Amino acid sequence: MTRGRRREHYQWNMDILGVPEVTAEAELISSIVTFFKRIGITASDVGFRVSSRKLLQEVLRCYSIPENLFGKVCIIIDKIEKVPIDEIKRELKSNGLSEEAIKELLQILSIKSLMKLEEKLGGACEAIADLKKLFSLAEEFGYSEWIQFDASIVRGLAYYTGIVFEGFDREGRLRAICGGGRYDRLLSTFGGDDIPACGFGFGDAVIVELLKEKGLLPELSLEVDNIVCALDDDLQGVAARVATLLRDKGQRVDLVLESKPLRWVFKRAARIHAQRLILVGTTEWQNGMVSVKILSSSEQYEIKLDELE
Amino acid sequence: MTRGRRREHYQWNMDILGVPEVTAEAELISSIVTFFKRIGITASDVGFRVSSRKLLQEVLRCYSIPENLFGKVCIIIDKIEKVPIDEIKRELKSNGLSEEAIKELLQILSIKSLMKLEEKLGGACEAIADLKKLFSLAEEFGYSEWIQFDASIVRGLAYYTGIVFEGFDREGRLRAICGGGRYDRLLSTFGGDDIPACGFGFGDAVIVELLKEKGLLPELSLEVDNIVCALDDDLQGVAARVATLLRDKGQRVDLVLESKPLRWVFKRAARIHAQRLILVGTTEWQNGMVSVKILSSSEQYEIKLDELE
Repeated sequence: MTRGRRREHYQWNMDILGVPEVTAEAELISSIVTFFKRIGITASDVGFRVSSRKLLQEVLRCYSIPENLFGKVCIIIDKIEKVPIDEIKRELKSNGLSEEAIKELLQILSIKSLMKLEEKLGGACEAIADLKKLFSLAEEFGYSEWIQFDASIVRGLAYYTGIVFEGFDREGRLRAICGGGRYDRLLSTFGGDDIPACGFGFGDAVIVELLKEKGLLPELSLEVDNIVCALDDDLQGVAARVATLLRDKGQRVDLVLESKPLRWVFKRAARIHAQRLILVGTTEWQNGMVSVKILSSSEQYEIKLDELE
Repeated sequence: MTRGRRREHYQWNMDILGVPEVTAEAELISSIVTFFKRIGITASDVGFRVSSRKLLQEVLRCYSIPENLFGKVCIIIDKIEKVPIDEIKRELKSNGLSEEAIKELLQILSIKSLMKLEEKLGGACEAIADLKKLFSLAEEFGYSEWIQFDASIVRGLAYYTGIVFEGFDREGRLRAICGGGRYDRLLSTFGGDDIPACGFGFGDAVIVELLKEKGLLPELSLEVDNIVCALDDDLQGVAARVATLLRDKGQRVDLVLESKPLRWVFKRAARIHAQRLILVGTTEWQNGMVSVKILSSSEQYEIKLDELE
């Protein structure tokens, strides 16, 4: 539909259930960082913006805004980078927030440092305690340079209740790479008690764009051990026998299904990166032999079919 | 929806374009047989029923039935095992086939031997030549015991033009496992010239049922190299450091995210098949050490964190 957004996609989801501590969020981000490192993405390519929904909750509480508006306000704020600020203000106002509350809210959302936030809200704030714990764990996990506080991150799903985070490309050319957070009150909506929970979603579309840009998309080339070719239509059956013999040994065999000129066969062998060319010719086959050519070295020999490995 | 049939499924498709010879069909079936052999399925579990659409065409031509009825007749006949025979007859009749043509058609469809078919239709028939060639190649490929002629196989898709085949379980408890055939006149319907083509589809639903029945479904057990646990909440950060150190070496680490009793940790280690348990305790950590326990041998030792491999 747009770059990095498709009608249908695959998504890597990881969730930790039953752990109320911030260690869970820290471990989730650690998993993503581990994945990034293994595919060659570094902290200068990608970062995570982190905040907590509890910040917003705090502000809304100060202005006596009813709790049932919380999810709605989050969804409005999530669009803050895509929609003109006046539009955001208008939407917040039409949901019953006072001019003063809106001003305060937008000011807090612009804060990009935990220290400044603490100056503003004081040390007793639960959101700040959670975030400090997360940043301290990030240091131990060794991914401090990957994460940064950004109060404007709220994520677009109504159900998050605590820490929220999203992965972004530092060049700012792509949509969010992944996103997640804590959702301690979601599970009871399906019946039963609540269970502390957090998790993330990581789609396959944006990361592929990023890997392409960084030249890190692995090339999965065709790998074939043998190309087998009969030099005469009557020998097609023998070629089939050769193919089965090698496939039964676990080898990958490309069997040429028609009589083709040798030039065609060599060209094809090169194109599919075959290691050996096995030719079944009339003269050799009269002695129960086939001809083997190692394509990297051009070494060539004849061998009895039952000695072929 | 039913056993072996789901609303959405994955399908292995393989097609050979540009080869008019039966070697292509023979190679397709060879691929499936190779796959079966590799997952432990044998010729006593599974077979292929093979026929040719040209047989039907021959019969319809004899009775001057217009060629545009061909696809429709095939679809009716494909239901022959699921629908009462009178229903099949009624449907064929309502499509303009005479009683005589229907009788002849059903008689031919009941033939299960190529030899009998040849007695009936004579040696000049193209269908018989194709089928004989396929069975002869099957012998060379080494999968004769997997395939059998069955004139009633027509497959339910209108576009097949030649050889058709389907894989079935010999106990007869499941739907067709896979199916395919030649479709030399399909590609031109998308524009351009026709290209000789054949292929098969192999869904993931029926084969999983078969593997379950045969006890061949591989158990993909959780495999974890290390379980890492802090024995004190204050040491959660150190445990995170241990986890990152090992993950950076490519190891799989399950990090316990909360303070848990040792009994819980041992139980979990067994459940996830962890090979080592790494405990971070206050006394050892005062000397920069952690405690390692090899779970298979109960061997236990202390080691400096930077010496941990």
